Amino acid sequence: MVEFLSTSRDDFEARFTALLSAKREESPDVDTAVAGIIADVRARGDAALVDLTNRFDRVSICASDLRVTEAEIDAEIAKVTAQDRAALELAADRIGAYHARQLPEDANWQEATGARLGWRWTPVGAAGLYVPGGLASYPSSVLMNAVPAKVAGVERLAVTVPMPDGIANPLVLLACRIAGVDEVYRIGGAQAIAALAYGTQTIAPVDKVTGPGNAFVAAAKRRVFGRVGIDMIAGPSEILVISDGTADPEWIAIDLLSQAEHDESAQSLLVTTDPAHGQAVAEAVERRLQTLSRRAIATASWRDFGAVITVRDLDEAVALSDRIAPEHLELCVDGAEALAERIRHAGAIFIGAWTPEAIGDYIGGPNHVLPTARSARFSSGLSVLDFVKRTTLAQMTPEALRAIGPAAETLAIAESLEAHGLSVRARLDRLNEGE
Amino acid sequence: MVEFLSTSRDDFEARFTALLSAKREESPDVDTAVAGIIADVRARGDAALVDLTNRFDRVSICASDLRVTEAEIDAEIAKVTAQDRAALELAADRIGAYHARQLPEDANWQEATGARLGWRWTPVGAAGLYVPGGLASYPSSVLMNAVPAKVAGVERLAVTVPMPDGIANPLVLLACRIAGVDEVYRIGGAQAIAALAYGTQTIAPVDKVTGPGNAFVAAAKRRVFGRVGIDMIAGPSEILVISDGTADPEWIAIDLLSQAEHDESAQSLLVTTDPAHGQAVAEAVERRLQTLSRRAIATASWRDFGAVITVRDLDEAVALSDRIAPEHLELCVDGAEALAERIRHAGAIFIGAWTPEAIGDYIGGPNHVLPTARSARFSSGLSVLDFVKRTTLAQMTPEALRAIGPAAETLAIAESLEAHGLSVRARLDRLNEGE
Repeated sequence: MVEFLSTSRDDFEARFTALLSAKREESPDVDTAVAGIIADVRARGDAALVDLTNRFDRVSICASDLRVTEAEIDAEIAKVTAQDRAALELAADRIGAYHARQLPEDANWQEATGARLGWRWTPVGAAGLYVPGGLASYPSSVLMNAVPAKVAGVERLAVTVPMPDGIANPLVLLACRIAGVDEVYRIGGAQAIAALAYGTQTIAPVDKVTGPGNAFVAAAKRRVFGRVGIDMIAGPSEILVISDGTADPEWIAIDLLSQAEHDESAQSLLVTTDPAHGQAVAEAVERRLQTLSRRAIATASWRDFGAVITVRDLDEAVALSDRIAPEHLELCVDGAEALAERIRHAGAIFIGAWTPEAIGDYIGGPNHVLPTARSARFSSGLSVLDFVKRTTLAQMTPEALRAIGPAAETLAIAESLEAHGLSVRARLDRLNEGE
Repeated sequence: MVEFLSTSRDDFEARFTALLSAKREESPDVDTAVAGIIADVRARGDAALVDLTNRFDRVSICASDLRVTEAEIDAEIAKVTAQDRAALELAADRIGAYHARQLPEDANWQEATGARLGWRWTPVGAAGLYVPGGLASYPSSVLMNAVPAKVAGVERLAVTVPMPDGIANPLVLLACRIAGVDEVYRIGGAQAIAALAYGTQTIAPVDKVTGPGNAFVAAAKRRVFGRVGIDMIAGPSEILVISDGTADPEWIAIDLLSQAEHDESAQSLLVTTDPAHGQAVAEAVERRLQTLSRRAIATASWRDFGAVITVRDLDEAVALSDRIAPEHLELCVDGAEALAERIRHAGAIFIGAWTPEAIGDYIGGPNHVLPTARSARFSSGLSVLDFVKRTTLAQMTPEALRAIGPAAETLAIAESLEAHGLSVRARLDRLNEGE
């Protein structure tokens, strides 16, 4: 049975804190193994990739097989139905339209001193996208990573996707094609991250690596951070539904299960002002669990990490939500739009009962790569900003330097950085000579 | 003697590649020690901070001394001269004005389907700023980290600054006061990062940690990344000057030394179209090195990592600059503004010979926390964006769901995520019932 909490009970704070700090994911200590894999790929390049891929993915490839050829991609995507293709294309269009609005603007202005200041945004040159293999190999994730990169203007986009037992996912390859991915490699794990970051004979290094993965992939991303940019270390998925009881309990039950079915470590929470509604949702979840195809996963997630939390009013709901800082937040209440304004920490908000979270996973337009594990307190979902960077610009005039140079010299001297001060002083002296 | 390279010589590519890949910083393997320190602070809190601080900083404090009191700050900043204070205040004003323009805008729009989409930016709740102690304890760095946080709307800003032998830096404390820092703690090293990330009895945890530090601090930031946000792992400073020989060689020599004096691992490079000018700059550097107060540091940096590179034309200069992706780029050429437009990868550009890089370190307005070690290929200097995060918004209507819901259901089924599909289907069925 799922856990029931109520802010009216004395044990609430202790139980809520326990819920928040529940360790949902075992992080096996794979760091030593990952360090070895990265060193191997740096030392031996393609040969290491081939050895590791043959071992982990139970295949027998050579270096010339590392890259998936266009002919192979053509053959795989021919298997995709017209309906699936149309859905992927609609998703790509809508994600593209949403993200196009995120392109940041350059700035350039002149001050009263005559100085010009500003900044300019430019795309990252090359990005590498990690796509998991097997069960969690999702075409939607390809779009969510690749489309923002292309919108940003990234010139080269390389995808790595392991193909265990040699089996490709046609939809993943179609998503690569639709999104304009330039290169696809049949590798995975820490070795794929190492290849993207450092390059091999076959794979040119990239500047930025994004995409979800298992503990090996996460550890490898943490290690190559600095050599390349990375997006985030993603944890298991989460949803928080705030409900005032006005929406159908069946809808909310399914929405909770749409996170729970992802992963045994996923977390689905309901916060409601209506205890009877909370009970009805919990009962609906139990019924749905009987028939759900992924019921083993969803049952474990709901049992171990799910909860129904009763609150006195929506003010309490907002406060709890900000403490949870959920990846996904559904507001199934009257006046959902106004309530959304009051939320401070959330990856994505789904406003009103007609907006199931799954819309955001596929087709709404916003990105589905979102901060997990309370990291919405300090980070954002993937966006075009992850694939651009800013160069700041400053242009002094003699007059501007005369106005602000002396203060720079003062601070340089105060910091005992003599040459810093001299670099300003030499120019100020020239100005004084000219007078 | 400094190294001279020329793109006209056969050995250029080999020597340039060696220059680019020179390992400028020893990274001692402190990770095991840092893991132990973090575990100790998590387990023992203030007691661990007190023990570690007393040991490393040669002091004898207790837990109630960890926070620097307002009275202590008052007493220290009373020592600052009026000239230094005025310079710091001008710098804070100018940095604030520049960064205020970086505040990102919310967006919200309605589609033809009736769906509303958008996003909203909110500030991080609490930020922790690491300030090094001793020689590299710079008030300008306090401003460069704290001012953007305050502009972003961060409500609580905590600074940690070690005070070896109990000695405070009055200018650092004044910079904290001017920038509106809320709390100052006399701790440093990995233990300070651990305290900011996890909290202790005295120090409430923060959401984001920024600021430069030594290898211990860098390793600790890498470890707490995910628990909190971090800015970047900063490496030694760099400058690239592109010169066509029109600027005074003395000015360029001093500008090169203003990076070299930071650190023996700093790198100062000149790329010039004029070999005689390159020679003149190198000679001016040698002369200046005779008298510079930090000549030991600057000489080592210039000798080990400096270079004068002669190119055939400015096209070559631009191409080399983008391969270097310098932290600081000075353009001392005729038509510097037009040349700046052609640069793709640089942390900050200083346009024209009247703009010494030191202006940017203190008072220009742009941030001086900038990507080093070629990371301008994929990352940006510190900004207001580091202290805000974005929540995406989606609000469907029944009509919008009718338009795009079926494609979401199709993709959910294709990904074998049944509940995802059902969450859309349940609503579509309701719509169909209503017809």
